[in-house]
Amino acid sequence: MADEYFYALTLKGAKASEVWDPEAKGAEDYQGGHKLIIKQALLGPDAVDGETNVIQVEAMTWKESIKIPVAVLKSGTSGQVLLDLSFPDPPVTFSLTQGSGPVHIIGHHLIGSPIEEFDEMDE
Amino acid sequence: MADEYFYALTLKGAKASEVWDPEAKGAEDYQGGHKLIIKQALLGPDAVDGETNVIQVEAMTWKESIKIPVAVLKSGTSGQVLLDLSFPDPPVTFSLTQGSGPVHIIGHHLIGSPIEEFDEMDE
Amino acid sequence: MADEYFYALTLKGAKASEVWDPEAKGAEDYQGGHKLIIKQALLGPDAVDGETNVIQVEAMTWKESIKIPVAVLKSGTSGQVLLDLSFPDPPVTFSLTQGSGPVHIIGHHLIGSPIEEFDEMDE
Amino acid sequence: MADEYFYALTLKGAKASEVWDPEAKGAEDYQGGHKLIIKQALLGPDAVDGETNVIQVEAMTWKESIKIPVAVLKSGTSGQVLLDLSFPDPPVTFSLTQGSGPVHIIGHHLIGSPIEEFDEMDE
Amino acid sequence: MADEYFYALTLKGAKASEVWDPEAKGAEDYQGGHKLIIKQALLGPDAVDGETNVIQVEAMTWKESIKIPVAVLKSGTSGQVLLDLSFPDPPVTFSLTQGSGPVHIIGHHLIGSPIEEFDEMDE
Ligand SMILES: [Mg+2]
Ligand SMILES: [Mg+2]
Repeated sequence: MADEYFYALTLKGAKASEVWDPEAKGAEDYQGGHKLIIKQALLGPDAVDGETNVIQVEAMTWKESIKIPVAVLKSGTSGQVLLDLSFPDPPVTFSLTQGSGPVHIIGHHLIGSPIEEFDEMDE
Repeated sequence: MADEYFYALTLKGAKASEVWDPEAKGAEDYQGGHKLIIKQALLGPDAVDGETNVIQVEAMTWKESIKIPVAVLKSGTSGQVLLDLSFPDPPVTFSLTQGSGPVHIIGHHLIGSPIEEFDEMDE
Repeated sequence: MADEYFYALTLKGAKASEVWDPEAKGAEDYQGGHKLIIKQALLGPDAVDGETNVIQVEAMTWKESIKIPVAVLKSGTSGQVLLDLSFPDPPVTFSLTQGSGPVHIIGHHLIGSPIEEFDEMDE
Repeated sequence: MADEYFYALTLKGAKASEVWDPEAKGAEDYQGGHKLIIKQALLGPDAVDGETNVIQVEAMTWKESIKIPVAVLKSGTSGQVLLDLSFPDPPVTFSLTQGSGPVHIIGHHLIGSPIEEFDEMDE
Repeated sequence: MADEYFYALTLKGAKASEVWDPEAKGAEDYQGGHKLIIKQALLGPDAVDGETNVIQVEAMTWKESIKIPVAVLKSGTSGQVLLDLSFPDPPVTFSLTQGSGPVHIIGHHLIGSPIEEFDEMDE
């Protein structure tokens, strides 16, 4: 039976970066795995007008670790995007590779049990 | 077997705020938990033209309570957004931290039973 | 085992309104319930240019019946929106509270059996 | 156990039209039903600039067959839309009722078995 | 029980192309199938301003292999799109048929077991 928690992260200031790594932070020994689903990425209302902000993620794919932009946000024209991205395994590093934000990254964090581990095949 | 209800909230006037807290409001003793899914956030047609409206949520994450903007709405350019956010646990406080709205927040409210509690791992 | 049907509704003319109420319209006695999922709301190509159209819904929430705008459409700038709204119980009334449309409202209609009734907790 | 296939259709030229009707086209006798999910509708890069293109569908609802626009596309301003529409039963006819395209319609085609037939109640 | 991996691909330079073909690349002998879900397609911040970029996919449908554009991206106006496309079977070839990118294509890769193979009928 999976538990689910609201997830929210703010990156503020050039090159700001944060790692989602529930297993590292002394998390009690969870049987199952952790999964992160990111739904929204948005620029705060206090972001510098007209500045381009780029959110990069670093995460493991099937064969290798990869760094890639997942959102390019610019206040006034494209300040918010529904990402709907799944990160099946920690750690995942979110970084502001361009712009000074603040950018807000929002979704939910699932802590599974081995039986139901990520049987997302039905999505 | 989960029950599901339409959910809709309007915030009108500067600093307007409302708490989603089904367990507190004398709700009959529900076995399972409550879960809120927010799909839409939109400015009403009567909102002040050109005014920036910011919807903030306050909710518990895995380890702490957090306040974060989830939508920045401006009539004429970005007046409506599909949020698709899940709030697995009450209470959740929605506030208008900027602008005077009205903003409309729409989704559905799930009242679960312990067996199926949040087995969203398959999403 | 749920049955599923395509659902489509057009509202044309000021104050146009229509009720989704499968149980009332002499629907055969369905064991389970009815659920409506609305995915798209869009202005027809023949809508008055620059006119603001507002789609309101009236539906039961957990505790009360409520009327609220769910889409503000304006041809040329924001003529179409992915709503992804769930209406777990009939009746639901769709109304054009502003503008003369035509607006097209599209989704699908689920007729459930009691066993699987709305176990959407896993969404 | 359902089988799933990528689905893609292009409509090019005024009044272009195509029917999705897997059961008619000499499809082997499939036990279960067919379901079509359309995710994207987009104008090709070679579409006439500034021309409004309207995609209409004709499909059976619970009680009747209906024709309705599902996307209004105009290159430069609104050339692509995430539709996320479900068509539980063939046939479905896609037509270009305005404009000369090309429009591209993309999603996936599910061929079910009777046991799991459209138990989308959990969506 | 399905396994799930983050998936990310960058196409850079005119006519850039890449095949998703997990079964070919000496992948250990996986019982079940592979499924790719693409959620985001976006132009990198370093893309040529005002240049139209077209992402084409080549994949098998129910009856034939097909090539079709899935995203038309132009920095400044439509630089990012939520695709939410499912590719039930490898191989799938992603190509930049117009523009020089870089375009970033992001989603997740599911490796199923035969029991749960693509029972997406419930989506
Ligand atoms: Mg689900
Ligand atoms: Mg599902």
